[in-house]
Amino acid sequence: MSTNQHTLDLDRAHVFHSWSAQGALTPFVIAGASGTEVWDYEGRRYLDFSSQLVNVNIGHAHPKVVAAIQEQAAILPTVAPAHANLVRGEAAARILAKAGAEFGKVFFTNGGADANENAIRMARITTGRDKILSTYRSYHGNTGAAVVATGDWRRVPNEFARGHVHFFGPFPYRSEFWATTPEEEGVRALRHLERVIQSEGAESIAALLLEGIPGTAGVIMPPPGWYAGVRELCDRHGILLIIDEVMSGFGRTGDWFAWQNPELNPDGIVPDLVTFAKGVNSGYVPVGGVIISESIANAFDDQVFPGGLTYSGHPLAAASIVASVDAMEEEGIVDNAAAIGREVLGPGLHALAESHAMIGEVRGVGVFWALDLVTDRASRTPVPAATIGALKKELMDRGYLPFTADNRLHVVPPCTVSPEEVLRALAILDEAFTAVGG
Amino acid sequence: MSTNQHTLDLDRAHVFHSWSAQGALTPFVIAGASGTEVWDYEGRRYLDFSSQLVNVNIGHAHPKVVAAIQEQAAILPTVAPAHANLVRGEAAARILAKAGAEFGKVFFTNGGADANENAIRMARITTGRDKILSTYRSYHGNTGAAVVATGDWRRVPNEFARGHVHFFGPFPYRSEFWATTPEEEGVRALRHLERVIQSEGAESIAALLLEGIPGTAGVIMPPPGWYAGVRELCDRHGILLIIDEVMSGFGRTGDWFAWQNPELNPDGIVPDLVTFAKGVNSGYVPVGGVIISESIANAFDDQVFPGGLTYSGHPLAAASIVASVDAMEEEGIVDNAAAIGREVLGPGLHALAESHAMIGEVRGVGVFWALDLVTDRASRTPVPAATIGALKKELMDRGYLPFTADNRLHVVPPCTVSPEEVLRALAILDEAFTAVGG
Repeated sequence: MSTNQHTLDLDRAHVFHSWSAQGALTPFVIAGASGTEVWDYEGRRYLDFSSQLVNVNIGHAHPKVVAAIQEQAAILPTVAPAHANLVRGEAAARILAKAGAEFGKVFFTNGGADANENAIRMARITTGRDKILSTYRSYHGNTGAAVVATGDWRRVPNEFARGHVHFFGPFPYRSEFWATTPEEEGVRALRHLERVIQSEGAESIAALLLEGIPGTAGVIMPPPGWYAGVRELCDRHGILLIIDEVMSGFGRTGDWFAWQNPELNPDGIVPDLVTFAKGVNSGYVPVGGVIISESIANAFDDQVFPGGLTYSGHPLAAASIVASVDAMEEEGIVDNAAAIGREVLGPGLHALAESHAMIGEVRGVGVFWALDLVTDRASRTPVPAATIGALKKELMDRGYLPFTADNRLHVVPPCTVSPEEVLRALAILDEAFTAVGG
Repeated sequence: MSTNQHTLDLDRAHVFHSWSAQGALTPFVIAGASGTEVWDYEGRRYLDFSSQLVNVNIGHAHPKVVAAIQEQAAILPTVAPAHANLVRGEAAARILAKAGAEFGKVFFTNGGADANENAIRMARITTGRDKILSTYRSYHGNTGAAVVATGDWRRVPNEFARGHVHFFGPFPYRSEFWATTPEEEGVRALRHLERVIQSEGAESIAALLLEGIPGTAGVIMPPPGWYAGVRELCDRHGILLIIDEVMSGFGRTGDWFAWQNPELNPDGIVPDLVTFAKGVNSGYVPVGGVIISESIANAFDDQVFPGGLTYSGHPLAAASIVASVDAMEEEGIVDNAAAIGREVLGPGLHALAESHAMIGEVRGVGVFWALDLVTDRASRTPVPAATIGALKKELMDRGYLPFTADNRLHVVPPCTVSPEEVLRALAILDEAFTAVGG
């Protein structure tokens, strides 16, 4: 009995949802999906400009990834992590080839949260230090240490882990440092970070944990000099640099990893540990992991690494990673994300901002964009929740599935999105902003 | 190029392993598997009496579960947790039907660790209390709070979360309480737990977190009166009872959940929260979750639950759960596990102990058994690691894939194991114990 109402009834009766009060939920029903489109049981189709939770980088139901999962399921659907399995080795090799020669091994986890947990663990053990620095405007996952590394509100009811210190990262549009240009914001944010390091005591800090581009916090583009300045501070103080590429990795920014973007990181600095999930296989099978520098990997040659999990290096996940990375390569999907951002989506969103005063700032790269919505541009006052609610409704009514966070609309289609789909989406956005009086 | 050597080379070059020093590993290569058997690329076949990590309850590559994954992959391989999806609702309904009428909803996670994380979070929020009590002889997972709830050695290098208190659970064969019978052990362990509750302050304790049957710690059978005594202590002090059924659930003990075993729990007490993973879908797709009592689920009707994750209620995982629970039901797989334990495996292991003095105790139920190996039966001194290493080699040489922990051999085949396979395994065990002089 496949209907919207039956699906909704089963859900409301039996399923407990993330980050929500359960009483008044009316979840949107998704029956199936392909490419950039999702649909319900009544045949209504939507352009998925959310990529679900910004993870379906390769588009929905990509045939090569689906086939790889189907084939692996028949060969070997599960294996313990202690054993060796061919497709797991192949998946690790694919990921390391994209990360670069500085990296030695991959540790697979179930998702982004436990990837960060294990990166934090590696940093603490190899440095012998306790504290992890991360920004208030960040999201690093839901488990014990990951959620305390998280800077946003979701940390506050969950602060049961110690050794986490938060600071303000750079955010030119909403500067904490009274900066008036991105360049000034970069300089002042680095100065703030250095003061936090000095005040906490550099010798107590194991790692700095930063998103490649802070995602859920608003697609906050790092200002000039930020990456190089961070690396220099870390090197000077013996602090490891963990880049969380869970949302920003595997094509989202038009590069394999955000840190590899030559405009964001012209000096080509390299992190010590990189965490990933989401785009690595577009979430077709739950998976995440840590890409480990050669030297940190080697530090555990003789020393036991005290972390692990049953599904580490799961064969279905590994098969989907191999197929996904190969398809992205063969079909030029990462290049498509870059070109879409540069030629269609970026210019289109900037044009949209010219006709809608509610759009205070357009930020992003590739297929990773946020519109910062304001009640007026001078004060940059965020629009209220009711405006976001009204905007979501207008978008859904027109067949556009949105991703919103706080006062923002994140425009985050799959990396496979076509120029035509972007133009359709931009037209819907234009109508919806007009409808809400923005 | 599918060979053992190539698989091993790729693994050693690129894959970082759980709970290990990486330098000297030579992982066993698994190319494929079916039912109780796994094989390598050179055609060597092994009886999998490990069920990998005690998770392949339905056997390897069960055709109905494989088909369900393949079909769901073609329909919808991934969906965000906020949306409603039919197969997720069906999976939750299946699980709740097995748990019983006291339970209201299921929150899906990626595995057992984050299931425990979220159960702990629910307990802390609904009670307004901080501390979680668990036993030293326990394993609850690898993430921030889960690993600190864990009692065994894996906790010690990872103690970065607060609010966890450990106590000694009952263990008749290795009593901490100078008890001489299981009955006495039960009484004394409850008295110890009560003293810990009084000493910590009951009003500071949110939950007691216990494995249904402590698994990795040695398949430690709860003594008479334990379940009822624990429930009574919890009720008297307003403490929630979380049963971790990650390893003991979904057929392993010959029941759907260990707590439902009428011999272990003759009073039929019911926990407040139950965590699961592993056997729920035999690990074919990474998944875990929390089964939530009606009253705790209702507590979050108006209050936001501050936890969540991208892959919560993943459709491939959900499809594999539906198929697995249905197949277990239709094929009488849980009953098979009970009968195997009662009629073949249990009697066979007890007979083995009669001819091998190294076997100090045989413990277990269903397809969940441990042999506690000792240098002599009077002192119960654990055998050294070298003996376990030698035993493993003898078993592998004879085509038996073992699961060992500390001084123990855990005998944990799939719930689908046949009497003939058990008899073959028992014959191999007999030879291997003879070979190591035990």
